[in-house]
Amino acid sequence: MARFFVDTLPAAGAEYSLAGENLEHAKVLRLKAGETVTLCDGNGMECVCAVAVPPGLLSVGPSLPCPAEPRVRVSVWIAFPKADKAEHVIQKAVELGAAELVLFPSRYCVSRPEGKALKNKLERWQKIARSAAEQSRRGVIPAVRAVDSYGEALREAAEAELPILFYENESGYSLHDALAEVGGGLGIGRPEDRAIRAISLMTGAEGGFSEEEIEKAKAAGMKICTLGPRILRCETAPLAGLTAVMFALGEI
Amino acid sequence: MARFFVDTLPAAGAEYSLAGENLEHAKVLRLKAGETVTLCDGNGMECVCAVAVPPGLLSVGPSLPCPAEPRVRVSVWIAFPKADKAEHVIQKAVELGAAELVLFPSRYCVSRPEGKALKNKLERWQKIARSAAEQSRRGVIPAVRAVDSYGEALREAAEAELPILFYENESGYSLHDALAEVGGGLGIGRPEDRAIRAISLMTGAEGGFSEEEIEKAKAAGMKICTLGPRILRCETAPLAGLTAVMFALGEI
Repeated sequence: MARFFVDTLPAAGAEYSLAGENLEHAKVLRLKAGETVTLCDGNGMECVCAVAVPPGLLSVGPSLPCPAEPRVRVSVWIAFPKADKAEHVIQKAVELGAAELVLFPSRYCVSRPEGKALKNKLERWQKIARSAAEQSRRGVIPAVRAVDSYGEALREAAEAELPILFYENESGYSLHDALAEVGGGLGIGRPEDRAIRAISLMTGAEGGFSEEEIEKAKAAGMKICTLGPRILRCETAPLAGLTAVMFALGEI
Repeated sequence: MARFFVDTLPAAGAEYSLAGENLEHAKVLRLKAGETVTLCDGNGMECVCAVAVPPGLLSVGPSLPCPAEPRVRVSVWIAFPKADKAEHVIQKAVELGAAELVLFPSRYCVSRPEGKALKNKLERWQKIARSAAEQSRRGVIPAVRAVDSYGEALREAAEAELPILFYENESGYSLHDALAEVGGGLGIGRPEDRAIRAISLMTGAEGGFSEEEIEKAKAAGMKICTLGPRILRCETAPLAGLTAVMFALGEI
């Protein structure tokens, strides 16, 4: 079923005309009268509508919470990667249920977009997030943003109930350990009853993190975790961490 | 540490000369005398060696089991996807610990390579698997192969102790349910004590599976699972399923 994000959901029983990009999209889809589509406010609520008059006049149904939104808010923090890896991570992380994506510079980042270049990239990344949200039936369009420094990233990421940094040289402390500390570990009740509400997952760029950066992260309150003995690429690690967390909490 | 796959591990204490592609790789790395590298037999055993004379004469250390090999054997079965998505899935699945990758045709496959074209693709995919195994410190180079029909894929995949097919129209039966049935569910002891030894994970192409294909899969013994309420792209689903299984079994 086609999915359109709109600023405000129309009232049930009303008629609503798709406009702008949504109308263009509807034309491409060649929607027929009677076909159903979903309007979503990007804030977790949606309504199923019937096409009254193609291409874009809809009969609006009742608003309901979007069933595909995870109950846990996972912020995915990634150090600027090279080339188009950021696009890849953003698209997949949105599919997998991330609440937001935040990019930050770190010592070993080769790519460090700033100013106009960063602004253009953020616009492009936000479009990718919107499109992935539509395709995967999300109820929210995750925000994509950047912070200016590693220190700022740490301060903000560490505010989450469970703030995790994945580090390839950590081997003893696992995501299982971290989840267990806040009552979300495997073996503790049914996964859907675990009540963790906010998680930050932070991963490095191609060269990983420096030891000094790891010490700073610990001091800021981040939990330094392994993702297992296999070394994951910088574009694989955030998605593996996100998937594992979503699975542990019964969202997969 | 650089990692080289060789046919047979040399005895501890011997000297060993890198050859062929491995020697070329060593030259590129500009290895210095005294630096350590790992030789791996691609069968789960490895030995750490010191460079005696650069670029490729090594002093061989004792053989040990590779610590990065998962205890569970997960076969990843993917319907032929379009474009370069197969390369992406193969690279990431090897990093994440897949034991093998098997491609198969299904009703909605747009791409269906055969004959010489398939042979060339398999050669290329196997090289990608080897390179990903080296980079991620695997002890095994996962095989990449193809079968001729969906029926053949089902027959073979269903032989695993836990044979799973992910289907976007399934909503009631989850991976948690499937793992619990074979004693590997969350909440059952420590993840590393779960004793599942062989899992098949099967996912569809861009258009998913037909209802008829799902009925055939059930009849063959596959467990039809959801991957959650968000619709994942065909290149995201196998990696999400693999990550979740590896996490559930304590391999992440």
